[in-house]
Amino acid sequence: MGKVRFSISVSIDGYMAGPRQSIEDPLGVGGMQLHAWAFELEAFQRMHGCEGGVVNASTQIVDEHFAGAGAVAVGQNMFGGQPGPWGSGGWRGWWGEDPPFHLPVFVVTHHPRAPLRMGGGTTFHFVTGIEAALEGARGAAQGKDVVLGGGARPHPTVSGGRPRRRDRVSLVPVLLGAGERPFEGLRGAVPRLAQDRVVEAPGVTQLRYRVVL
Amino acid sequence: MGKVRFSISVSIDGYMAGPRQSIEDPLGVGGMQLHAWAFELEAFQRMHGCEGGVVNASTQIVDEHFAGAGAVAVGQNMFGGQPGPWGSGGWRGWWGEDPPFHLPVFVVTHHPRAPLRMGGGTTFHFVTGIEAALEGARGAAQGKDVVLGGGARPHPTVSGGRPRRRDRVSLVPVLLGAGERPFEGLRGAVPRLAQDRVVEAPGVTQLRYRVVL
Repeated sequence: MGKVRFSISVSIDGYMAGPRQSIEDPLGVGGMQLHAWAFELEAFQRMHGCEGGVVNASTQIVDEHFAGAGAVAVGQNMFGGQPGPWGSGGWRGWWGEDPPFHLPVFVVTHHPRAPLRMGGGTTFHFVTGIEAALEGARGAAQGKDVVLGGGARPHPTVSGGRPRRRDRVSLVPVLLGAGERPFEGLRGAVPRLAQDRVVEAPGVTQLRYRVVL
Repeated sequence: MGKVRFSISVSIDGYMAGPRQSIEDPLGVGGMQLHAWAFELEAFQRMHGCEGGVVNASTQIVDEHFAGAGAVAVGQNMFGGQPGPWGSGGWRGWWGEDPPFHLPVFVVTHHPRAPLRMGGGTTFHFVTGIEAALEGARGAAQGKDVVLGGGARPHPTVSGGRPRRRDRVSLVPVLLGAGERPFEGLRGAVPRLAQDRVVEAPGVTQLRYRVVL
């Protein structure tokens, strides 16, 4: 059975999104800064069908991110940048018609809707609750790894104490002052981690942890 | 004029101390884990008049910490591990009679008391408000750097927007789940940081930032 890969970009003050998330500010005010290190990469641009960009120490991090994965589970904000109901506009997410996942993507939402089949092999499935998303993603992954995406809600507890192969934190030298915290509300079985790899890259420190308990 | 050095150990979920700080648990429940990387160092043991310990990539971090500094400013918890009044027991802090500072130390407290002269050149001065502590420390430092210590309260805003030469964060692979956050309550002039140095060390990632604005 595949493992779960958890991966986030966080500010030094521990936010994975800024305050007041909306369609205009899918990562909240100031939140885009958390991903500037990725946007500038050739590997990222290529993944989104674009050209240009740089190659640096973060390239291997992005290349590894989806390599060999079978499905993705993300928060609603990661799909659409919108915490409330979907409305009637037929909003198809902020990734465009050919999202970079190329995999089944299970979106955790309080507002279920029919699956959304996009270009390039990405289908968005909308489910209620992270456990349902993980279950769906595990089934769709057929033994491969599930990538737990960076929408502001899924955090380490969601893997239900099961071992996760890879916890990746991209620590960005930014202070947001407010926003969404990835590890909020840890209660009871707090996972024990061991530092596995540290990569210094331009504008970001790429950290990887193993779950040891 | 010397600069301010800000230095903290934080958990992955962004706490610099655990919950329920007390004399018994000066760093709160679980908080000592944040400093395990330091305690095991020969450099740390030597600084506290002890022998033994290891030498690793964190050694230079500890060696640099007080090198060339002229004074220290800390929170009350860093002095004594006690958020309330001092009581009548003549509590002289949890560092023993020969604290490792060997410098004037300005303790921010809501409960002023007379200065406390310890062995080895350390004198604790108790002042109200971080600005008063910084002012006292700057005067005592006579042009050298002021080390801003890791008690849970002094955070980056205390430097009042003045440039600080060195922001050091020791990121520890631990999830505390609750406790004191170092960067809480940033409002207005949030400092802009640039990643300056990353050192991978056993059980900790040693990060250094420059303030660019």
